[in-house]
Amino acid sequence: MKTIEVCLTPDLIHQHELSGKIVVVVDIFRATSCIVTGLAHGVESMKPVGEVEETKALGKKGYLMAGERGGIKVPEFDMGNSPFEYQADEVKGKKIAISTTNGSQAIIKSAEAQEIIIGAFLNLESIAQYVLQSKINVVIHCAGWKGTPNLEDTLFAGALIDECVEEMGTVGDSALVAHQLYIANHENLFGIAKQSSHAERLSGFGIEEDLEFCMTENEYQVVPKLEDGEIVG
Amino acid sequence: MKTIEVCLTPDLIHQHELSGKIVVVVDIFRATSCIVTGLAHGVESMKPVGEVEETKALGKKGYLMAGERGGIKVPEFDMGNSPFEYQADEVKGKKIAISTTNGSQAIIKSAEAQEIIIGAFLNLESIAQYVLQSKINVVIHCAGWKGTPNLEDTLFAGALIDECVEEMGTVGDSALVAHQLYIANHENLFGIAKQSSHAERLSGFGIEEDLEFCMTENEYQVVPKLEDGEIVG
Repeated sequence: MKTIEVCLTPDLIHQHELSGKIVVVVDIFRATSCIVTGLAHGVESMKPVGEVEETKALGKKGYLMAGERGGIKVPEFDMGNSPFEYQADEVKGKKIAISTTNGSQAIIKSAEAQEIIIGAFLNLESIAQYVLQSKINVVIHCAGWKGTPNLEDTLFAGALIDECVEEMGTVGDSALVAHQLYIANHENLFGIAKQSSHAERLSGFGIEEDLEFCMTENEYQVVPKLEDGEIVG
Repeated sequence: MKTIEVCLTPDLIHQHELSGKIVVVVDIFRATSCIVTGLAHGVESMKPVGEVEETKALGKKGYLMAGERGGIKVPEFDMGNSPFEYQADEVKGKKIAISTTNGSQAIIKSAEAQEIIIGAFLNLESIAQYVLQSKINVVIHCAGWKGTPNLEDTLFAGALIDECVEEMGTVGDSALVAHQLYIANHENLFGIAKQSSHAERLSGFGIEEDLEFCMTENEYQVVPKLEDGEIVG
């Protein structure tokens, strides 16, 4: 039986063997939700980068520059971190460099994996189908918040396990914790996610619609995949 | 308002500021359950040690030697890691050196704390009263399993938060995850804990009674505290 395990934060990734596995990277608020949205709306590719300066260097090569710091769009950037910006006609066919702290770190720390794919509630069912049809084991890598676990990424891990658990075995207690968390809250995902530290930090920014959208299941059918440093749909 | 936060495994303790705080160390299966039981039954003190050789050295100084490796008592030791052994008349008034992997590591990594106390379901209410009456902030340090979070320690963290949440504020999403896990499972603690990886690893050892006892709430009223390297009641 194939297995599925959960790493609750990049600071625990050393506990997980990644080689030969699919790693599903998740950063619900808001990096992976933006990536899924952009690729579903015709963005050519998304390049995850850590630093603002690296993003600007890519901007000079023709990339759209995206990302925020402390909840606010970086002034020189073309776009911030709201998934709605990634639905605009202006992004179709474009390459986007997206600067994120937590999401990029999770992707970089997943480098040993055989495949890296990008998960969000927005493409939950498509990710589930992809991993169920694959022949290899799965690690869900939650981006968390600056090295600590967060509620919304853990909820996603539980949701993905819930989709897969009849055909895959879970490994480790983080998977059990995440699954229990999802089972207890699946009828009120947005309600519980609003209590998260991240949602509270962002509550002054008027982005409740963003957060609600990020908690919407199965809006899109893409399975974004990292290929040569760029995420493609 | 005083605060309570949760560290899900010693591998994440660098994310938590411990100085000036009470750290509640928890290792439900079975180190802290044994410590609570022993001190409630008249053991003079318990010294947590990591290595078997260090335990033997203390044995030569008159300590009872306690602990297991891989679920089995170390052959030369006086006792293993079943809480029932710590209820015997033979332990009254004795000093015990207890060799544990996860629990000792959590205690050692809590050294910066202002106070280190030992929690288990067995003394949940007493720990809750102690931290509520104290003036300082609290970190619940889950021993986990070899650096990864585990189900039973996370459940305890949620249970302690549930006792304190009306008078204390939680910090961070690990506290929210633990609390949700407890709320969803508080009527079936043993049932859920039996699904944990640790319980499964131990299932061949005929210790179901041990595990059930470890999940019993409020059997004892002690608040074990680390003083000069020894835990006293």
